[in-house]
Amino acid sequence: MKLYELNGGFSLDHLKMADRPIPVPGPREVLIRIRAVSLNARDLGVIDGFYAPDLPLPFTPVSDGVGEIVGIGSDVSRFNIGDRVSGIFTQQWLTGPPHRRYAGSTLGSPLPGLLTEYAVIDENGLVFVPNYLTDPEAAALPCAGVTAWHAIVEEGRVKAGDTVVVQGTGGVALFALQFAKLHGARVIVASGSDEKLARAKALGADFGINYRSTPDWDEAVRAITGGEGADHVVDLGGAATIERSVNAVRTGGRVSVVGILSGARTNNLDLIAVLQKKITLQGINVGSRAMFEAMNLALETGRIRPVIDSVFPFEEAVDALRRLEQGVHFGKIVVTV
Amino acid sequence: MKLYELNGGFSLDHLKMADRPIPVPGPREVLIRIRAVSLNARDLGVIDGFYAPDLPLPFTPVSDGVGEIVGIGSDVSRFNIGDRVSGIFTQQWLTGPPHRRYAGSTLGSPLPGLLTEYAVIDENGLVFVPNYLTDPEAAALPCAGVTAWHAIVEEGRVKAGDTVVVQGTGGVALFALQFAKLHGARVIVASGSDEKLARAKALGADFGINYRSTPDWDEAVRAITGGEGADHVVDLGGAATIERSVNAVRTGGRVSVVGILSGARTNNLDLIAVLQKKITLQGINVGSRAMFEAMNLALETGRIRPVIDSVFPFEEAVDALRRLEQGVHFGKIVVTV
Amino acid sequence: MKLYELNGGFSLDHLKMADRPIPVPGPREVLIRIRAVSLNARDLGVIDGFYAPDLPLPFTPVSDGVGEIVGIGSDVSRFNIGDRVSGIFTQQWLTGPPHRRYAGSTLGSPLPGLLTEYAVIDENGLVFVPNYLTDPEAAALPCAGVTAWHAIVEEGRVKAGDTVVVQGTGGVALFALQFAKLHGARVIVASGSDEKLARAKALGADFGINYRSTPDWDEAVRAITGGEGADHVVDLGGAATIERSVNAVRTGGRVSVVGILSGARTNNLDLIAVLQKKITLQGINVGSRAMFEAMNLALETGRIRPVIDSVFPFEEAVDALRRLEQGVHFGKIVVTV
Amino acid sequence: MKLYELNGGFSLDHLKMADRPIPVPGPREVLIRIRAVSLNARDLGVIDGFYAPDLPLPFTPVSDGVGEIVGIGSDVSRFNIGDRVSGIFTQQWLTGPPHRRYAGSTLGSPLPGLLTEYAVIDENGLVFVPNYLTDPEAAALPCAGVTAWHAIVEEGRVKAGDTVVVQGTGGVALFALQFAKLHGARVIVASGSDEKLARAKALGADFGINYRSTPDWDEAVRAITGGEGADHVVDLGGAATIERSVNAVRTGGRVSVVGILSGARTNNLDLIAVLQKKITLQGINVGSRAMFEAMNLALETGRIRPVIDSVFPFEEAVDALRRLEQGVHFGKIVVTV
Repeated sequence: MKLYELNGGFSLDHLKMADRPIPVPGPREVLIRIRAVSLNARDLGVIDGFYAPDLPLPFTPVSDGVGEIVGIGSDVSRFNIGDRVSGIFTQQWLTGPPHRRYAGSTLGSPLPGLLTEYAVIDENGLVFVPNYLTDPEAAALPCAGVTAWHAIVEEGRVKAGDTVVVQGTGGVALFALQFAKLHGARVIVASGSDEKLARAKALGADFGINYRSTPDWDEAVRAITGGEGADHVVDLGGAATIERSVNAVRTGGRVSVVGILSGARTNNLDLIAVLQKKITLQGINVGSRAMFEAMNLALETGRIRPVIDSVFPFEEAVDALRRLEQGVHFGKIVVTV
Repeated sequence: MKLYELNGGFSLDHLKMADRPIPVPGPREVLIRIRAVSLNARDLGVIDGFYAPDLPLPFTPVSDGVGEIVGIGSDVSRFNIGDRVSGIFTQQWLTGPPHRRYAGSTLGSPLPGLLTEYAVIDENGLVFVPNYLTDPEAAALPCAGVTAWHAIVEEGRVKAGDTVVVQGTGGVALFALQFAKLHGARVIVASGSDEKLARAKALGADFGINYRSTPDWDEAVRAITGGEGADHVVDLGGAATIERSVNAVRTGGRVSVVGILSGARTNNLDLIAVLQKKITLQGINVGSRAMFEAMNLALETGRIRPVIDSVFPFEEAVDALRRLEQGVHFGKIVVTV
Repeated sequence: MKLYELNGGFSLDHLKMADRPIPVPGPREVLIRIRAVSLNARDLGVIDGFYAPDLPLPFTPVSDGVGEIVGIGSDVSRFNIGDRVSGIFTQQWLTGPPHRRYAGSTLGSPLPGLLTEYAVIDENGLVFVPNYLTDPEAAALPCAGVTAWHAIVEEGRVKAGDTVVVQGTGGVALFALQFAKLHGARVIVASGSDEKLARAKALGADFGINYRSTPDWDEAVRAITGGEGADHVVDLGGAATIERSVNAVRTGGRVSVVGILSGARTNNLDLIAVLQKKITLQGINVGSRAMFEAMNLALETGRIRPVIDSVFPFEEAVDALRRLEQGVHFGKIVVTV
Repeated sequence: MKLYELNGGFSLDHLKMADRPIPVPGPREVLIRIRAVSLNARDLGVIDGFYAPDLPLPFTPVSDGVGEIVGIGSDVSRFNIGDRVSGIFTQQWLTGPPHRRYAGSTLGSPLPGLLTEYAVIDENGLVFVPNYLTDPEAAALPCAGVTAWHAIVEEGRVKAGDTVVVQGTGGVALFALQFAKLHGARVIVASGSDEKLARAKALGADFGINYRSTPDWDEAVRAITGGEGADHVVDLGGAATIERSVNAVRTGGRVSVVGILSGARTNNLDLIAVLQKKITLQGINVGSRAMFEAMNLALETGRIRPVIDSVFPFEEAVDALRRLEQGVHFGKIVVTV
């Protein structure tokens, strides 16, 4: 079978197609014919060696994908051949709160990823995906969808009438927009592009703020909310945005820390504001299998379609990753296998 | 000014129009020109003497209404003349959890009600109502709207993909339907009339069960949910329905006890089912001012319109109450003043 | 090995000692040398055929026990030979909320129980037990301890200064007393025996009410709490007590339904009180492995010792069950193996 | 009457005793004869002009105090002459979540403080204090006690078996220690003094870490918790400690941001750790009247005595503030009036 491997070093230049034997599932594992994968910023971090510099090579990256079960182990009871499934990001996080011992079970590092024609996964680490979704749409869900669901619904407990701020128009941001709107909230999108803001509004965003023309986007959020501040900011920028996110939320509000696109070390967070406004800052790192299943039910009920930026054939997977690197995408970049 | 008073005894026959001087607001009170009131089953209970047999007469019933502020006390700071406001049902429940000491502060018994041209209310016991609503629509909110909001959103924490069962098509039921749909849930309505079920579906209900042709409506709910049971049943029937409500919810599910239309004493609730399925039964008794304000924000964001069954002129208020008694209404019965 | 089996019918008279080969653990199972078991009312229900009349015989009852691992399957990773462990009641409920699909995985019916010298259990269905506990103390934990922990801590979220009412002085009741006191709460115990009340006070109970001399124990609770009512009642009586439990709690209070000793069908529950006081009634059915582990940490931190009523040798297991039937015990009845 | 006023500028040198007429309570206010006040770091910030540089002078600082009601307005219903009461820190925050509009109602800036013989306070801004406490003990509660209660109990939901880390041995820290122990938790205290650690252990602390001899106190916490990390860190240091606090908590853990003793701007907070461990950072700014009342119930039930570092007579109030400035105290510094 064909797959991509990082070999000889970390960088996109070291990611090459290779030929390997199709793996054989163990008693509680299934063999999946991968049909589509989607790309996340984390995949670039893995490929660049930033994320896990000691990862043994060769290594197949990319955590998110969807495929069809074509082989099952002798003790498998949850699935049958022909089922269309996705792997869950943290293979051991099935339900309940997260735990340190799950940390080593994430796909695409340290566990092998899905940029391959076939993969073997434990049956407990899989979910059915909604029938009405195309393969590229289904491939978009495991990291970006579950992260947004976790932040907006499971922890954010969004309700109708809330005001939610979403940073950017990448995969997580657009899922967050869709989930907030699905629950009747008002959504403010901050982006550096008027064209992307227009597309976000077409998806349901109530307000758009261009942070290039309006660098004080936090003050713009306050103005939109009559001086109160937003109920919830989904922060994707990290070091460069967290300070303004804190300023943009209301007393008692919430900032979900879901990305670190501009850097991970923050040296200017105003703890007086955090304290005086009783702000909750919470890190969100994808989610459990139970969250994935709850999200799928919600998607199906609302017939929500994930936003696909572009679809690349398997042979052009490196081009797809380069597009992600450029940061010009709107929604998810997908590679079909 | 004109108002209605129970006088000489309890019953609809004792409810008569009378003439009284316009009351004068104290320092922190406002005078309201009532424009519309809406009727609740509780109002009939007050009029019949079932609810508070020792209520001193004469007494003006009806808890819910909307009006315009036409006079303000010297220390009033939250409102101005001309503001359109509604009284909150439990005048002292402003925010946080309920408390026993609030119990005596409900409008329409023991505090005087709003079936009158003018009323005086403490400024803390009022909320602004959304501008886009007509007076009859705004009058529908204080009990029925807030009760449904409390059950579905504040305590039920409804989320997209949940399955919610609503009993009947009265005021609370239709608000519950609307709020559940506003949050992306699936809604099953149980009613004794196919015509009402058709109207509920037009409002967004996903499934309708006619409990006359399908007395085992709980089993129908289980079938619709693939055997799991619903996440949440809003029980309005009380004695006659609570047992089936328990059967209709899933393991870990919730039954909100919001009405007792068929009786208040239950002698057949199966505690084994409650125990084995870890069911939560929770009484819901309207809600706080903060809930009312949160609901108003949600209504406004979603441009939700309360369902008005019928509108009667002030002179026909007794006819309006008789229609409520008959139980043939779909949504709220309103009297304009 | 020796074990007890129900054979030829349901009743204590059909429970006989038998000889069977020591079972062999599968790849992910362990073999446990049982050292002590504790008895629960449910065990009697199983033996009487009330609980599961279609249970295939012969059958070994009793869900709770502790033992030493003496054999492990080839794929076992959580335990080693020599570890002292207890089985969790619901073998598939590891963490997170309960689910219908776990229902068939309870020990002592439908899965075989622990009234045996040796048992084989999946490694995921076990927990370590605190070192400082004796075998009889450790055997007391799986049902009674976890149920009380679930009700008082996980769902009841007891905090210092709360008032908690506990019915009776059986296993669950005394654990509930101990856990409530461990969190700084005030505890009222209701019992039919002054001598048991005296013993409960020695364990930390702040107040005792003898429900024989004070049948209106709910009013006594209200008096103790200055008319407010208790924050939380742990209801063990079921049909005969639930009505008074509702009367005994404060506005916004909680009744945990954990037992049905006097019958499972309510006979006069007042839904008006449930509604007007916004009471939460919640069934509690033991709990998850994560709850068991959290409870063990708490026990260890507080050096709490479970209350053991009496210890019987293996040969007198039927006598032990008869003592449970009589209802004269104070704490847990244990059989050493 | 005598009182202290900041006059002519901001600094301890500008804090002078003065003579003013005894104020007269309005209709819903009471006149209080102050008996004791306690000092908080915030009081120094107010006096130094750091906290509110535009505060109009002269101004009487200090937010926390206890006294006896010696006069009541005509409409007062919650209190009588002779009642012993404390003012709540945020006068308008009675119950429920915090709100921006309460921010201007804090005692000791911008509202006048209690370093005075008599003060007038709205009856809604007061609570009864437990009878068993001395005046200095009661004076310790409003800020330090309520902050610790809010962090540990209301938001932290501490339960038995949890591990809580407390920084330092000031007022908030020792209340946090006491409240965590009251709920059965394990407590680790970090302090720069072995002598203070010994005193903290005498109060119930399970572990002490001297952060001078062990600058990597976060690693020491991890070691004590078997590598997991603590459930909850109460961070008082701010800029200099928040990074280590994040390292010290477990996956899914909580850092309460309650102080900024070493600076308010983070200098190196690692958002990757926040994100990967799903950490919750939450600012805590004292609390509501309802929290104060709940805390009082807990104190009374557990007969907890606040830790008093030292008591100064009214004439030596400036010396008391200088002692606070030095940071050598263990518990609360009190001034009797």
